[in-house]
Amino acid sequence: MSVKIEEISVRDIRFPTSRERHGSDAMNPDPDYSAVYVTIHTNGNHTGNGIAFTLGRGTELCAAAAERVGAFIVGQTLELLTADMGKFWRTITSDSQLRWLGPDKGIIHLATAAIVNAVWDLWAKTEHKPLWKLLTDMSPKELVRCIDFRYITDAITPDQAIEILAAAEPTKPERIARLRETGVPAYTTSAGWLGYSDEKIQHLCTDGIENGWAHFKVKVGANLEQDIHRLQLVRDAIGPDLTLMTDANQVWDVAEAIEYMGHLARFEPWWIEEPTSPDDILGHAAISKAIAPIGVASGEMCQNRILFKQFLQASAIQFCQIDSCRVGGVNEVLAIILMAKKFGVPVCPHGGGVGLCEHIQHLSIFDAVSVSQSIDDRVTEYVDHLHEHFLYPCKIDNGAYVVPEAPGYSIEMHEASLEDYSFPDGPVWQDNQ
Amino acid sequence: MSVKIEEISVRDIRFPTSRERHGSDAMNPDPDYSAVYVTIHTNGNHTGNGIAFTLGRGTELCAAAAERVGAFIVGQTLELLTADMGKFWRTITSDSQLRWLGPDKGIIHLATAAIVNAVWDLWAKTEHKPLWKLLTDMSPKELVRCIDFRYITDAITPDQAIEILAAAEPTKPERIARLRETGVPAYTTSAGWLGYSDEKIQHLCTDGIENGWAHFKVKVGANLEQDIHRLQLVRDAIGPDLTLMTDANQVWDVAEAIEYMGHLARFEPWWIEEPTSPDDILGHAAISKAIAPIGVASGEMCQNRILFKQFLQASAIQFCQIDSCRVGGVNEVLAIILMAKKFGVPVCPHGGGVGLCEHIQHLSIFDAVSVSQSIDDRVTEYVDHLHEHFLYPCKIDNGAYVVPEAPGYSIEMHEASLEDYSFPDGPVWQDNQ
Repeated sequence: MSVKIEEISVRDIRFPTSRERHGSDAMNPDPDYSAVYVTIHTNGNHTGNGIAFTLGRGTELCAAAAERVGAFIVGQTLELLTADMGKFWRTITSDSQLRWLGPDKGIIHLATAAIVNAVWDLWAKTEHKPLWKLLTDMSPKELVRCIDFRYITDAITPDQAIEILAAAEPTKPERIARLRETGVPAYTTSAGWLGYSDEKIQHLCTDGIENGWAHFKVKVGANLEQDIHRLQLVRDAIGPDLTLMTDANQVWDVAEAIEYMGHLARFEPWWIEEPTSPDDILGHAAISKAIAPIGVASGEMCQNRILFKQFLQASAIQFCQIDSCRVGGVNEVLAIILMAKKFGVPVCPHGGGVGLCEHIQHLSIFDAVSVSQSIDDRVTEYVDHLHEHFLYPCKIDNGAYVVPEAPGYSIEMHEASLEDYSFPDGPVWQDNQ
Repeated sequence: MSVKIEEISVRDIRFPTSRERHGSDAMNPDPDYSAVYVTIHTNGNHTGNGIAFTLGRGTELCAAAAERVGAFIVGQTLELLTADMGKFWRTITSDSQLRWLGPDKGIIHLATAAIVNAVWDLWAKTEHKPLWKLLTDMSPKELVRCIDFRYITDAITPDQAIEILAAAEPTKPERIARLRETGVPAYTTSAGWLGYSDEKIQHLCTDGIENGWAHFKVKVGANLEQDIHRLQLVRDAIGPDLTLMTDANQVWDVAEAIEYMGHLARFEPWWIEEPTSPDDILGHAAISKAIAPIGVASGEMCQNRILFKQFLQASAIQFCQIDSCRVGGVNEVLAIILMAKKFGVPVCPHGGGVGLCEHIQHLSIFDAVSVSQSIDDRVTEYVDHLHEHFLYPCKIDNGAYVVPEAPGYSIEMHEASLEDYSFPDGPVWQDNQ
């Protein structure tokens, strides 16, 4: 029986995280982690779910955009969309009037991601597979048909993508077996937020090591003296052998970034994340050149495959931090993972927020199994917030993601959570506003 | 008496231009030229008006975003905002939660432009000056204080900007007098849309020459054979001495653009506009290098000063087509005009749509008077649509914009037009939907 998309519902869900300063950094002092939560209702047994991750104010704008974009697929069948996912993606991102509002960036693209990911979730559930399995079971040709290569053929062609995927084919089962045994290497950002006391940071580091973490990321950029103090704290707590990363959340201009990192180099950070504007390819390239061997990482606010292409072409990033909800969903993520492989840059997805960790575990598994064939120099971000609201929350064991086995893209939330945190009418917002 | 901002009203105005295929090109087959129309109501004699230009569907999303951004300035005084316009701009674009939805791009930035431009319009009206006069009367220091230099100091510093502006100071009055005599050099896009018959194109060219036009732009990219036919038509009609430009509206990948323009080179186009994605700096640079001496022009969908900075740094464009409503209003436009001067690239603003021509005449005058000190190689786009809806429509005489003298940014619309074309309730949409 064909699965028909009958209705799309869109909800505005907000968690009052700013009350406890979870997630605070130099650019985002008071985020209320939020989500546009999309549900595709069908005539079948399954729903499809997707989210746009947001920080509070403006979630209502993304929700309205998701209604607008979602309207394009109501009445269609899942079979029609999945028969040519590349065409579906091109169509949904190319409406001749909406395109002016992007193209492929900002609110309209966040909303597109939520809708596109909900279709993938529905597809995976219908096939009774976790999303990573749906992807790793596809042939190279089938995968390439999911990608819109417009504007990236100067970096990767469909044939080159097939070549990369074909090379991984014979050994996929071994890598799946290994990941099921060891998990997907992760790192934690929980210890490094601004606004925590020295004691809390030390405690979180010690605790992290006991729980098997080997990578620790620290937010920097608000105040040099305090950053040196905090980096010294963390380096002392984790010792010389564990890995330390830094994250500036875009606070610097190019010259400032280079000068500032000169002062932090003695703590031997593996990377500096988001040293400047997420739009500044040439700026990142200049910083990369100046501060090597410290690497530059970026991607959580990189708007689309065209920007990622240039970051890779210009050797502007040494770590590619794809975000599952910023670019236009799984289709566009596939293009970026393949380009990163072609340019030899490891993919270390951006986690945190609401549901990002649930998403990215699937993407990292796909990358390791079907594309890069490697987990070296690849760590997937983990932040220990808000997982309790998901039906199938990601699980961490000994500093690694446990391979998820439930069907879908792991993004379905508990109805009680959706009701409690609904904005502005949910009880959480009634009690404490 | 201080001018207090008491309320901001936002209206969704749409013109059914798709019914006659005005404005059709390879990427935009059926635009309904539309606008979010913002009015700042004060306790004084003046209102401030600004627009976000859109293509129809999704205008409601921009309108909601304008309400959201506009809320930040309700209750403030004009004096407070204009005392430090740079700080005002930084504040309005840096809300810690909304920033995630951009930053500085897409719907949220289009809405920001409408609000910011409405403040400039109000300021100019309060000073009883057309916007260009408000700008050209400012000292270099005052102008530089209007700009947020974040993320562009590697291309231009405040001191370098002051140096450029100071060099133009002594001779500003001469240039103003000359522009009032000769007008601001313009070019017309009216003849070159896709979808017009041969006869109509020939007629529009002959007519254009009679009316003093010397530059003719033709849309290309949908079909090579037809493009060659149309370019031959236009070149024959305008002769070898008048200037012909081409515009592909983003239809090509990088290699396609280079190959296609090889076929069109014999018609000696001055520039190819938007050969590929507006996000592809390195792609434009590769095309520029390959097709010289044909220049590459882009900007109408260039999202912000950070992208423009890189287009200039990479020698990726030879003509800088700022858009008055795409980047974040006058403040950000000032930054871009100054960077273009520093890199020696002429500014040729993007016109057309709703109200863009009304806006950009002011910007071109400011550029010529206070920054570039030149009108050589600079032409400002003119499209003859929808001007009748404005209180002070731009005027063309002998292929040049007549310097506007009415106070403000020329963007106030007739109340009757606002009512007739209001979407979805205006009579135009009731009758013909």
